[in-house]
Amino acid sequence: MSKNSFGTALKITTFGESHGVALGVVIDGLESNFTLDLEAIQKELDRRRPGGNPLGTTRNESDTFEILSGIFEGKTTGTPLAIIIRNTNQRSDDYNNISELFRPGHADYTWHKKFGIRDWRGGGRSSGRETAARLAAGAIARQILAAKGINIIAYTTQLGDVVAHERDFSQVPLNNTSTPDKKAAEEMANLIERMRGENESVGGIVECQITGLPAGLGEPLFDKVDALLSHAIMSIGAIKGIEFGDGFKVATAYGSQNNDQLGKEGFLTNHAGGVNGGITNGEPLIFRVAVKPTASIEREQKTINLEGEETTIKVVGRHDPSICIRIVPVIEAMSAVTLLSLWYEQYGR
Amino acid sequence: MSKNSFGTALKITTFGESHGVALGVVIDGLESNFTLDLEAIQKELDRRRPGGNPLGTTRNESDTFEILSGIFEGKTTGTPLAIIIRNTNQRSDDYNNISELFRPGHADYTWHKKFGIRDWRGGGRSSGRETAARLAAGAIARQILAAKGINIIAYTTQLGDVVAHERDFSQVPLNNTSTPDKKAAEEMANLIERMRGENESVGGIVECQITGLPAGLGEPLFDKVDALLSHAIMSIGAIKGIEFGDGFKVATAYGSQNNDQLGKEGFLTNHAGGVNGGITNGEPLIFRVAVKPTASIEREQKTINLEGEETTIKVVGRHDPSICIRIVPVIEAMSAVTLLSLWYEQYGR
Amino acid sequence: MSKNSFGTALKITTFGESHGVALGVVIDGLESNFTLDLEAIQKELDRRRPGGNPLGTTRNESDTFEILSGIFEGKTTGTPLAIIIRNTNQRSDDYNNISELFRPGHADYTWHKKFGIRDWRGGGRSSGRETAARLAAGAIARQILAAKGINIIAYTTQLGDVVAHERDFSQVPLNNTSTPDKKAAEEMANLIERMRGENESVGGIVECQITGLPAGLGEPLFDKVDALLSHAIMSIGAIKGIEFGDGFKVATAYGSQNNDQLGKEGFLTNHAGGVNGGITNGEPLIFRVAVKPTASIEREQKTINLEGEETTIKVVGRHDPSICIRIVPVIEAMSAVTLLSLWYEQYGR
Amino acid sequence: MSKNSFGTALKITTFGESHGVALGVVIDGLESNFTLDLEAIQKELDRRRPGGNPLGTTRNESDTFEILSGIFEGKTTGTPLAIIIRNTNQRSDDYNNISELFRPGHADYTWHKKFGIRDWRGGGRSSGRETAARLAAGAIARQILAAKGINIIAYTTQLGDVVAHERDFSQVPLNNTSTPDKKAAEEMANLIERMRGENESVGGIVECQITGLPAGLGEPLFDKVDALLSHAIMSIGAIKGIEFGDGFKVATAYGSQNNDQLGKEGFLTNHAGGVNGGITNGEPLIFRVAVKPTASIEREQKTINLEGEETTIKVVGRHDPSICIRIVPVIEAMSAVTLLSLWYEQYGR
Repeated sequence: MSKNSFGTALKITTFGESHGVALGVVIDGLESNFTLDLEAIQKELDRRRPGGNPLGTTRNESDTFEILSGIFEGKTTGTPLAIIIRNTNQRSDDYNNISELFRPGHADYTWHKKFGIRDWRGGGRSSGRETAARLAAGAIARQILAAKGINIIAYTTQLGDVVAHERDFSQVPLNNTSTPDKKAAEEMANLIERMRGENESVGGIVECQITGLPAGLGEPLFDKVDALLSHAIMSIGAIKGIEFGDGFKVATAYGSQNNDQLGKEGFLTNHAGGVNGGITNGEPLIFRVAVKPTASIEREQKTINLEGEETTIKVVGRHDPSICIRIVPVIEAMSAVTLLSLWYEQYGR
Repeated sequence: MSKNSFGTALKITTFGESHGVALGVVIDGLESNFTLDLEAIQKELDRRRPGGNPLGTTRNESDTFEILSGIFEGKTTGTPLAIIIRNTNQRSDDYNNISELFRPGHADYTWHKKFGIRDWRGGGRSSGRETAARLAAGAIARQILAAKGINIIAYTTQLGDVVAHERDFSQVPLNNTSTPDKKAAEEMANLIERMRGENESVGGIVECQITGLPAGLGEPLFDKVDALLSHAIMSIGAIKGIEFGDGFKVATAYGSQNNDQLGKEGFLTNHAGGVNGGITNGEPLIFRVAVKPTASIEREQKTINLEGEETTIKVVGRHDPSICIRIVPVIEAMSAVTLLSLWYEQYGR
Repeated sequence: MSKNSFGTALKITTFGESHGVALGVVIDGLESNFTLDLEAIQKELDRRRPGGNPLGTTRNESDTFEILSGIFEGKTTGTPLAIIIRNTNQRSDDYNNISELFRPGHADYTWHKKFGIRDWRGGGRSSGRETAARLAAGAIARQILAAKGINIIAYTTQLGDVVAHERDFSQVPLNNTSTPDKKAAEEMANLIERMRGENESVGGIVECQITGLPAGLGEPLFDKVDALLSHAIMSIGAIKGIEFGDGFKVATAYGSQNNDQLGKEGFLTNHAGGVNGGITNGEPLIFRVAVKPTASIEREQKTINLEGEETTIKVVGRHDPSICIRIVPVIEAMSAVTLLSLWYEQYGR
Repeated sequence: MSKNSFGTALKITTFGESHGVALGVVIDGLESNFTLDLEAIQKELDRRRPGGNPLGTTRNESDTFEILSGIFEGKTTGTPLAIIIRNTNQRSDDYNNISELFRPGHADYTWHKKFGIRDWRGGGRSSGRETAARLAAGAIARQILAAKGINIIAYTTQLGDVVAHERDFSQVPLNNTSTPDKKAAEEMANLIERMRGENESVGGIVECQITGLPAGLGEPLFDKVDALLSHAIMSIGAIKGIEFGDGFKVATAYGSQNNDQLGKEGFLTNHAGGVNGGITNGEPLIFRVAVKPTASIEREQKTINLEGEETTIKVVGRHDPSICIRIVPVIEAMSAVTLLSLWYEQYGR
């Protein structure tokens, strides 16, 4: 039910497979009369597209988008805005050997168990390529949020053992790992190239900060802002955890340390990460997510085939040594969609 | 929209305030002809009820439930099952001083900003007392899941600096902190009593393990099992993070370590925590959540009043030194509701 | 799925069986800070309650309501407002003979086929008694609409062969058939008493008019105001048709007759019944519904039992000779809920 | 919210404007492993497409569809199936004169009031052209229903004063008005040509009959099969009423006439139109809808412009003298989508 839709006041419905005809998204519930910046959409797609980042996959996709509906003379009309991105660089042959085998760390096995059929080319619908559609939706949502003074930035804070200690946001667009720490960015780049050389992959942590939010977003009891963001972010492949504010560190905190006290100018600290009782409190909303290492590695791994017989598999292809760096814009996109929906819930269109 | 409802094939709608007339839940979508064990429902409520745990609040509530609809001659009929729990032990006077002040760490400020009015007695709808309704729903869901061979157990693995190293589940019901480690349980009890003496509180970590799940639960793209569970669990107050399987440790893992390889008998490891691509894979589903220290502490803290003037507040009352131990059954309850809903999605009623 | 909930921005969830413990409704999404008139709620319930109308059933139910949540110091708080109405006058014995038989015209057979179990006492969940919960929700919604200048009135325009030709709304509350035509009202009363004497029942037509609506309510493409109202109204038992404006008469109309032309002061006619393209146009919204004769009649009818064997049944009890007159407030209630939800969609809370 | 989506277990989301780039639909929730007949989809589109019927508009659109996702090797995969139909024969110039004027009987005025902007070319999103997307979805749903033994047929029973008295279904595909009465079909054709000559239009009635349904479809309390079908059908432009079984005739019926009594072989009559208490009872499901005369007529009519000034308008273009005959397949399509969704609710995928 609704399984390919997300959101309430603003709802996105995505479709498309990695090696099918096209990916796409229908965005329903946008306010009318908003002048869209179409170049900004392409720019967002370019941040994630295969071939757009020298540290990512060596595949190349232009990821050109086409808007099919919902705008008139450059403005949103309040009708559903549909965007498609045609697939062009499909080497299905790369995947012939996986049609009968389950790749470890992928959704091949579970998808097979659930549906009894799957488009195995490139992982089909379970491919990370699906996030291109989310990016398109997010690119529109974030434009509208920006016009309301709300800005979203995500950035890599850890890759394997390399930790970014600084938060110099001017660095983020200057390096290929979206890291707010120049030195760490260099080390991360080296780590990625080492991984590529070793047919290995590595995980990481991405942090996201949203500023300019008014107090009052989030719909208790169940659609709390942190609950909805968790749903949105955890629905992205490869993410294994999410934490807000001090996150898992609260386990060792005392109440007197963890409570954010209040003064005339607002909260004196932000241990909560900008949310109390599931509602934004006016402070920056901050969360972090854990990204697992890319599952596709060209190393021999044990697996079984469709008949349940044991065998081994090497996942050949042009894979990302770390999916973490390409997930950064996807996290921003899903955050934008979630928060714009909550904005509409609270303030209407 | 739907903000007090959760679930699709199975949907719960909760209502009620901490010091209002009653708490309640409507459970819609249950299969028909299931014989309910009513005592088991009361037992679940007793695990969380104020006064039910010597390490918790010294308040006392009987938390007796009444079923208003949905059963006939002891069996579910497929119509909505409504349960109410009347509030009995309400000392609203304890809260008079907070009607004009925002308690740090609570939702008073954000609720005020959002709704412009709030039942401030005991936190009203944002009180942890609201979870009694979730427990009642969960108590029913878990009975039905158990009949399908699915079992859920949550337990405290950390409280402040005390870490449970063992996983001896037979210990969990034997101590007041629901800890699977006898020695750690004793230390946790001591820590809680120390906190109570110091008018302080402390956070912790709860782990949850679900066994007996078939491969195939979870509805991609957006209603992945881990995404939905994150939504459900993060909607519980005081929870600041959730992680599945190896969780945040994946940041430093290599792909060759993190991938769960497959053999004839199933997966050889369970780094993923029982979920691939958002669908259960037949292995135990495992996640952990971070619980913040109780916000209510009887210590002087800076805050503002409704007029925005600076002042201080001590939150007097009979508070839990650690909310962590009373959240354990709530985590089980929300997991049960989420998984039964996904079961119905996949297999029907 | 959501089957016992209705609405989006405003959502009602009802529960309860005819001869169960209680009926109830949870109203989610109400604006905060609205001062409720509680007496008005009871007044609405009294319009429909068994025993409240000398032309209806001779059963008697006080239909006293209790609010469990969602108000504080007399005002709505924006949290879910739950109302229950306990059942008191239950003569289950009246229904013993139907536990094994399917009453013609009732949902006994279909309910049995669908759920495999049913609370057969008084029809259980499929009883018209269920509408008491809808009335409670509608009583609140219409108060809020009235404060926005929107008023709803439904009235009987036909009962059997008796047609109300006048539209004198001052008459509606003065007679027991809610008829806007004094003479027709008398004839209808006579018809009903004749039906009662003959162990017979009769159908009718109810018209509903909503004034004060702004242009702009209704959410195309699928949640058009007339589509949503049709869903809401057709979900009431015993209703077999609905038409807006000129309704079925449009079949013989020409475009030049049927189009409502526009002048400075608004539309020159109202053939459309106040809706164009599924959006209110500022004219009175008008629709009519067909109500079937009460299915319960104390006459011998052919039927089968649970084993499929042929037999006959007389439905004894204290039944309404025409359900039509007791459906009038239910139609108003469902209209109120639907329109307030659409108001919130368009203008926010 | 969700305003461009319909359905629960099966959900369609449509997009597109009359003179935009394309129309489309995303169908979410289809069962997997169903082999689609692609030609049958085109055939359905051809029944409605402009130029496909000599009695309809003289515009011509090929309405060629493209499937973008959701199938693999000819079979459904359980992932969302997206279809687009590009617009090709757009004479926007035909509509220049309406950019500033509100056409009587159209949604121009209400759309303007609601959104403050509209794609006025051909009515934009409020155009009947939008139903092409519904037809594509319905073409798929009806294939799947047919495989389950369920068949849907709609047909014109009245056009202006011409009434079809026979129900000879073999005639339906043989005439251009989809009429089950040879003689009436000829008269209807004559009436339409007369209307065209007079720049006039005329309304009608379409009946729909669904056979092969099991007893048990429909989800009380609110998603009753007749309530959902009413929602679905009333969401189609130009429809002003719907009735089931005996419909409005129940107003004058007695209970003893209207109740469908039961025998061993099933119901002895079908006054109810195949539904009791909102659940299918195994008899043919029958409903009728009232279709208003085409609003676009090339006759002078009073209206106002965007500034509210009075003026007149003639709606030039190539309009259908009766939209009724082109609505027939749309009614079938929406019925198919609704019933397949309810099937999945009851029996799963």
